[in-house]
Amino acid sequence: MSDLPAAVHINEEGPREGFQIEKGPIPTARKIELIDALSQTGLDHIQIVSFVNPRAVPGMADADEVVEGITPRPGVAYTALWLNEKGFERALAHKRLSLGGSITLVASEKFLKRNQNRTAAEQLASQHRIVEMYKAAGIPVERGSIMAAFGCNFEGDVPVDRVVALVQQILGVAAEHGVTLKYITLADTMAWATPLSIKQVIGALRERWPDLDFALHLHDTRGLAIANAYAGLEMGITRYDAAVAGLGGCPFAGHAGAAGNVCTEDLVFLCNEMGIETGIDLDALIECAKLAEDIVGHPLPGSVMKGGTLQRFRNPQHV
Amino acid sequence: MSDLPAAVHINEEGPREGFQIEKGPIPTARKIELIDALSQTGLDHIQIVSFVNPRAVPGMADADEVVEGITPRPGVAYTALWLNEKGFERALAHKRLSLGGSITLVASEKFLKRNQNRTAAEQLASQHRIVEMYKAAGIPVERGSIMAAFGCNFEGDVPVDRVVALVQQILGVAAEHGVTLKYITLADTMAWATPLSIKQVIGALRERWPDLDFALHLHDTRGLAIANAYAGLEMGITRYDAAVAGLGGCPFAGHAGAAGNVCTEDLVFLCNEMGIETGIDLDALIECAKLAEDIVGHPLPGSVMKGGTLQRFRNPQHV
Repeated sequence: MSDLPAAVHINEEGPREGFQIEKGPIPTARKIELIDALSQTGLDHIQIVSFVNPRAVPGMADADEVVEGITPRPGVAYTALWLNEKGFERALAHKRLSLGGSITLVASEKFLKRNQNRTAAEQLASQHRIVEMYKAAGIPVERGSIMAAFGCNFEGDVPVDRVVALVQQILGVAAEHGVTLKYITLADTMAWATPLSIKQVIGALRERWPDLDFALHLHDTRGLAIANAYAGLEMGITRYDAAVAGLGGCPFAGHAGAAGNVCTEDLVFLCNEMGIETGIDLDALIECAKLAEDIVGHPLPGSVMKGGTLQRFRNPQHV
Repeated sequence: MSDLPAAVHINEEGPREGFQIEKGPIPTARKIELIDALSQTGLDHIQIVSFVNPRAVPGMADADEVVEGITPRPGVAYTALWLNEKGFERALAHKRLSLGGSITLVASEKFLKRNQNRTAAEQLASQHRIVEMYKAAGIPVERGSIMAAFGCNFEGDVPVDRVVALVQQILGVAAEHGVTLKYITLADTMAWATPLSIKQVIGALRERWPDLDFALHLHDTRGLAIANAYAGLEMGITRYDAAVAGLGGCPFAGHAGAAGNVCTEDLVFLCNEMGIETGIDLDALIECAKLAEDIVGHPLPGSVMKGGTLQRFRNPQHV
């Protein structure tokens, strides 16, 4: 009745998503504590910091110290986010980071104008320059990304055809510069997606590019992230960004619209219960979620860390 | 790609689910305020109280006063819950309540033993007596119900075959007493369901009884309620119990396992965004959710009341 994958890959973004939005200040040592704990759970991709202007994002002012302070675990790729060349150069200085370039377009021209003061044509042109910059630095470009792929607070609904056209443009940039993308991330940046629109967009992309892989970056602002992830699973999507404990927003402090990514441990629970392999130790991840709550000092939205797993009821000696 | 229904019917259980679990005390007038507000949203079934032992459930000690205090709105059915004959008799005294009987079985014998000190055979026998009691009182019996239909904390996973057998037994009781059931509610009492198990159970029941209607009663203890509701929608299920603001549990106060029903306004939002009619005014319902938070005095789990709807971004004059 569905096309559920046998296994999925989860890209943990909780530290970066969470620590950049919390009012803090959060001690650097505690950020490192969470990252090191996450690296013990089986997660093999963890986005730990963003290299951004510390005046705009005070919570990331210690990004360099965080990167230098962690205890890297073999087999775990620690990644970072940057928004411009200056941030990229800061990231490049850290040999322990796994850097990867992305070709990024935005499905809403109004959002692009507002956030980066660019037209869609200017954004496309900039991606050519950025890919050359990555190539010159010896950084692989394996990912495409479409922001606001399902809708935008400034422009409204995004037609499926526009997403198809943007994927075409991304593939065009990649081809022109001789890079091969492993996958393209569809980001529901402002939480407009529904399970139905997930299926419609993925369906249209699959029809056009049957062999192309896609990833989902889902925000839970309106409570649909886990249902949207399930729709992705039904479409056979195997790559998901997620944030432990639902870090990245604080819906209980009046930050309307700022809710975080789909909660990692809730997503792992969903996968476990449907027989989908994640490679992640759910019990260890739940301890990380509780640690994250302790670090930020207020409740976080994750559910399984409060409701508990089911495994303990199946193995009575485990209760 | 799916079998989404054109319209669904939502049975609001927030007042009953919420007020019986909150530590309170909540003033009777405020309970009435919420119920009267809910009755203005387009909801046409609202379960407002349970008639239970006030020593066991102090939050329902004022059930009679609540029923007498509301301002009934024509077209809205106000319902109540009871667990035994004494509670039923209290409900019968209120002419403004819409009483309906249910034939209820439990998919977990251990749960049944623990909660009602009965075997499955005794529970089945009791349902024959209960149907006769309803008939004698002139109360329609239009609903069957299976508790713990997807799993049980005391017994573990529930096989699909057992649910099929229980539906068969319920239909047998109904037939023997000459009553025709409108639908059978599958209750995920202890939050074991996944979208996959929803589809498997509904699929098996549909195969056996293609014309029988089912309803879903979904708890959000592990964060999957909205994904489970979506799976129900994909299977064409048109009846859902829900609780405004996610009333019925307080996951942020350490009540592990006590999370409420699927959140009504989040479910209405999901339906609206996928073109499924609910007959409910979402903006008015969100105001009720905020009122519910104000009444209980702590954050409730609903998301859309915090993140906002999308309609205001589509109609700029509405911002």
